[in-house]
Amino acid sequence: MTNALLMSSSRMGNMNYLQHADEQIHRLLQHKKQSILFIPYAAVTFSFDDFEAIVKPVFNALGYELTSIHHFSDPVAAVKQAQAIAIGGGNTFALLKRLYDANIVELISQRVKYESIPYMGWSAGSNVATPSIRTTNDMPIIQPPTFNALNICPFQINPHFISGKPIGHNGESREERLNEFLTINPMEELIALYEGTALFIENDHGTILGEQNALWLRGPNKIEEIATNKPFKLNMIKGVQ
Amino acid sequence: MTNALLMSSSRMGNMNYLQHADEQIHRLLQHKKQSILFIPYAAVTFSFDDFEAIVKPVFNALGYELTSIHHFSDPVAAVKQAQAIAIGGGNTFALLKRLYDANIVELISQRVKYESIPYMGWSAGSNVATPSIRTTNDMPIIQPPTFNALNICPFQINPHFISGKPIGHNGESREERLNEFLTINPMEELIALYEGTALFIENDHGTILGEQNALWLRGPNKIEEIATNKPFKLNMIKGVQ
Repeated sequence: MTNALLMSSSRMGNMNYLQHADEQIHRLLQHKKQSILFIPYAAVTFSFDDFEAIVKPVFNALGYELTSIHHFSDPVAAVKQAQAIAIGGGNTFALLKRLYDANIVELISQRVKYESIPYMGWSAGSNVATPSIRTTNDMPIIQPPTFNALNICPFQINPHFISGKPIGHNGESREERLNEFLTINPMEELIALYEGTALFIENDHGTILGEQNALWLRGPNKIEEIATNKPFKLNMIKGVQ
Repeated sequence: MTNALLMSSSRMGNMNYLQHADEQIHRLLQHKKQSILFIPYAAVTFSFDDFEAIVKPVFNALGYELTSIHHFSDPVAAVKQAQAIAIGGGNTFALLKRLYDANIVELISQRVKYESIPYMGWSAGSNVATPSIRTTNDMPIIQPPTFNALNICPFQINPHFISGKPIGHNGESREERLNEFLTINPMEELIALYEGTALFIENDHGTILGEQNALWLRGPNKIEEIATNKPFKLNMIKGVQ
């Protein structure tokens, strides 16, 4: 019984950090007193202390305790005793490498999928919750041992979805990048999440939360929409076979 | 004696494919009759035949022969007999994976660095010419065996450089992404190339070609400019130690 909240972004428009997600977080954590283990490994240009200082007050204001994993001498023990796990955004490659370095990839996956502890991630924290990091928007600044990730969600997600490309620039648009993914991985589909939206997972069902529908990319230039607040079977979307 | 032309992009503004680079290509190939081996492995959403059909007329019009590697039954033999090598843009991860699959990474590197055959690349073809693909802008749609690449240029390049980020979007700007690279790899520097510009390498000297100066990123938010058409010592820029 998996319970997961995979958010596109930490912010929506000009709102404060995670402000748009208050209700989404309560829906996952159900107002229960519980201690969240925060994993700040995606932070690169700021410290883990600084990251915790941004995130902790948000969760405290919602009535939840939160402690960053970098305060524990043994990250494996920290994950073993966590009642919920939150992984913040930043660089997906740094995040995944540090998760492997700490030897907690398989353990987090097991605890979420088989012991049902709630998982929430945003941006890079959503990327690592999927089968692999192949649909991150981030720069590959450091090499993880593999692109394979937590596999809490059985298909790829593209967070921070935005259409088009900057004016006067000849690089790829987001749609072109995702078409490349779908072309080179023809057995897979993916979901693109606009900023401020999320995929909520309850066991074998998903629900899009937020004000915009999600895009269901079924192949190159083959796009359908998934309406918000309407549960669907997760296996409707083709993941890694 | 390395001779290489590493272009930021295949296009500048609304000009035709490689049109901005005519003089840059002649400077590398010196109007000598020679047969260029073209490597189209970065193409994902279009075929190798289609890619060759775009590139071949450009080089023919400049007086050079060009044949794509996919017409050879043995890619290793093709690289061994090539008089010059050109690698086109597309997806950097697909490109590097296919170079490794064809077993030609080390061979191209050796032929360019020690047998002095001219190398030209644009976009993804410039990314793979550096020590690694850690500063590509592309999506990691498929996993290569390693990020290590041709190492023809001894430091990282960021092609298609553009400043800032789309309005109303909370993803990282290009500067933020490159600051992440420079933070997590503190012993390295890199060069960012605006579209339409190139790094020309002659042995141990580099020259920026095109109408805009290059950016020399020496650390997070530590940016200097390198003027066009003024040779500089390549070892001025810190690469992988």
